Amino acid sequence: MVLEARDRVGGRTEGGVLAGHPVELGGTWLGEGHTEMYRLVAELGLETFPTWNDAGTLLLDLGGRRSRMRPHKGATPRLNPIALADLAQGLARFGRLARSVDPAAPWAHPRAALLDGQTFESWIRRTLRTPTGRAYFRVLAEAVHAADATDLSLLHTLFYTASNGDLETLISVDRGAQKDRVVGGSVRVAERLAEDLDVRLGAAVSGLVQDDHGVTVTTRAGAHLRAAHAVVALPPTLAGRLHHSPALPAWRDQLTQRVPAGTVVKCLAAYPTPFWRNRGLNGQAVSDTGPVTVTFDVSPPGAEVGVLLGFVEGGEARRWQRLTAERRRAAVLDRFRHLFGPQAADPVSYVEKDWSAEEFTRGCYGAHFGPGTWTAYGPVLREPVGRIHWAGAEYAVEWSGYMEGAVRSGRTTAEAVLARSASRAPAAVTAP
Amino acid sequence: MVLEARDRVGGRTEGGVLAGHPVELGGTWLGEGHTEMYRLVAELGLETFPTWNDAGTLLLDLGGRRSRMRPHKGATPRLNPIALADLAQGLARFGRLARSVDPAAPWAHPRAALLDGQTFESWIRRTLRTPTGRAYFRVLAEAVHAADATDLSLLHTLFYTASNGDLETLISVDRGAQKDRVVGGSVRVAERLAEDLDVRLGAAVSGLVQDDHGVTVTTRAGAHLRAAHAVVALPPTLAGRLHHSPALPAWRDQLTQRVPAGTVVKCLAAYPTPFWRNRGLNGQAVSDTGPVTVTFDVSPPGAEVGVLLGFVEGGEARRWQRLTAERRRAAVLDRFRHLFGPQAADPVSYVEKDWSAEEFTRGCYGAHFGPGTWTAYGPVLREPVGRIHWAGAEYAVEWSGYMEGAVRSGRTTAEAVLARSASRAPAAVTAP
Repeated sequence: MVLEARDRVGGRTEGGVLAGHPVELGGTWLGEGHTEMYRLVAELGLETFPTWNDAGTLLLDLGGRRSRMRPHKGATPRLNPIALADLAQGLARFGRLARSVDPAAPWAHPRAALLDGQTFESWIRRTLRTPTGRAYFRVLAEAVHAADATDLSLLHTLFYTASNGDLETLISVDRGAQKDRVVGGSVRVAERLAEDLDVRLGAAVSGLVQDDHGVTVTTRAGAHLRAAHAVVALPPTLAGRLHHSPALPAWRDQLTQRVPAGTVVKCLAAYPTPFWRNRGLNGQAVSDTGPVTVTFDVSPPGAEVGVLLGFVEGGEARRWQRLTAERRRAAVLDRFRHLFGPQAADPVSYVEKDWSAEEFTRGCYGAHFGPGTWTAYGPVLREPVGRIHWAGAEYAVEWSGYMEGAVRSGRTTAEAVLARSASRAPAAVTAP
Repeated sequence: MVLEARDRVGGRTEGGVLAGHPVELGGTWLGEGHTEMYRLVAELGLETFPTWNDAGTLLLDLGGRRSRMRPHKGATPRLNPIALADLAQGLARFGRLARSVDPAAPWAHPRAALLDGQTFESWIRRTLRTPTGRAYFRVLAEAVHAADATDLSLLHTLFYTASNGDLETLISVDRGAQKDRVVGGSVRVAERLAEDLDVRLGAAVSGLVQDDHGVTVTTRAGAHLRAAHAVVALPPTLAGRLHHSPALPAWRDQLTQRVPAGTVVKCLAAYPTPFWRNRGLNGQAVSDTGPVTVTFDVSPPGAEVGVLLGFVEGGEARRWQRLTAERRRAAVLDRFRHLFGPQAADPVSYVEKDWSAEEFTRGCYGAHFGPGTWTAYGPVLREPVGRIHWAGAEYAVEWSGYMEGAVRSGRTTAEAVLARSASRAPAAVTAP
């Protein structure tokens, strides 16, 4: 039985319609190595299609200067030689460090205390010498974590990179984490799955009571449901808000006090055609000028319409989310225009989604760990408390933060519950 | 009207009895400059007495080596000259930095981004050169914040120091923040205050609904109470768990995801006499060998019995809170014995309190801000949301983290509510 707080399934994946075509308001991509998701998509009778990446170049807009870059893995940006050398040594050092971290146990690294005792920003300042090199890594933090480099433990950025293969996989389309999309939108995976499950919509859970024989789950509306085990499939910061009886142990409660969600407003603009493709651009840009720091071409497959996606992240999201929707839209379109040309200023339709304003999510893409948290609380992250287990993209060892991680964590957790369950009573799952 | 989740008032102050005498299981001290608390204590007909500090020396136990130090402000520890010089330059640099931070607006510091972008640990490694110097500052982080230096934003440690005068005031007994105690225990302040208030015990609040005319507060037991305004006087991490309708804005919710409470187990041992005084010791010690990092003489006034207090903090608390109470007690008494002599191994009674295990507190002494949080969310910390205000030790500009800060924040908030309230409806207050 699945208790779902919202009146729809999908959580951090959500479907929308723009210019008559389905778009993703949340999680979007399947990537290289996301084997469980490809298998699930096929099993559910759905199809994938490649993210647009075929023609044109990616734009790098750092420190007010634009350069172009081939969008393929192994490509190097066209920067001045000093910035390029600085960036190259920074990427090499980060890569070496990330390869030394075991994503199953970042706290077990021989220098875990040192790596977890500093921010990613401290590492950037120490390692990168050029403004462009620093800007690149800061934008990287925003693009990957929807958080500022100042907010992140260096060990967390290394864990996340190791969990997702390597930095290049993480940020790439071609052979990378943004490789494919689901025809009709990623939310269709959850929708199809829900068809064969007992899902209760609008059933926000308020608390869980455990005893020797099972768990009683109470909803805000006052329903009581009984199960042998429960899986709390919420982002950690929301999981920490449920009432528990008996009260959770100190370490579990203090863990969920320390894993905040990122901050992102996702903005989508539809145009009569993907006009940027004719200008030798592939719709991808990385910029350190706000509000939009990262863009993608997320046009639907086989249609004439073109759709640009812009992420407003971290500090930019905090600044802009307090202003009116009109001002945000104007600022986003102004950046689209700057990057892709005058036609970008006049979309046929536009939509945005602020995930931190969503009561049942409270931030995307996912949780990040500030300094000290992995070493202090990492060992209890995936540990059940009695009959209560935890699952979701944040609990995955591999492909943390992606739909792939969520599915793998779900499978691992379900296997753990089944293995210990002698009873035939169904396990209750509370999903966001 | 005060809605109190517990079956007692006092929150993070709590009375206990040890060897027939009252002791404090939580907040204990009044210090130099805590004018509102001294005024309140007098107004309520209570009395203070000085913390024992008269005879003997403080013990410094760093890197396995013990040294003695006069316990008065301005005293220097007896360390080797190199460690002493290192410590002196570190203290001078920290002091200068702290004086440059305005505790009313740490985010407005001209170098706020730099100071908030690094951990206190990063600053320690860069600034201190000797193992003793580094150990001193790390123990300081634990003693002051019940958190490790790795967990804290440098800007937060500077804010907290500026809020509490200076570092010396913060850590001193004589003319410092640990100067006096309340006869009968600090909890008597809350108990006396409650006598004149409408306090509903056992009334844990689950949610708040705002409309144009007021706030409806719902308790877990299902009671609904109506007021013109509400003051949520919970530690931020607990305030973030209440349901709100309409949902809180993104920035308020994300703030409370980022201000975790510290980790501390407070341990008290009573002896027939304060025997350490006869050995030239004042019962105060600072040590980097766990589990006890800081001790005090908290003997009752005018009695023969002696009481030693030991704090188990940060990483030490996390390690030891997962073991049995018997093992913790043995380890704590072993450290008392090491520091104060063989008599310390056999107390006549012993009690401990793990504040992070308390459902209605979830960590002490208070909240700390990790890197990035003050600059990103500081400006909204003290900002009401509609008819809901926030109060408590964490919201104080001056004497943050102390009972004094809580009282000042309460007064400031009450004045703000009264100033905007045209209505005569009473304001509801939810207290921990």
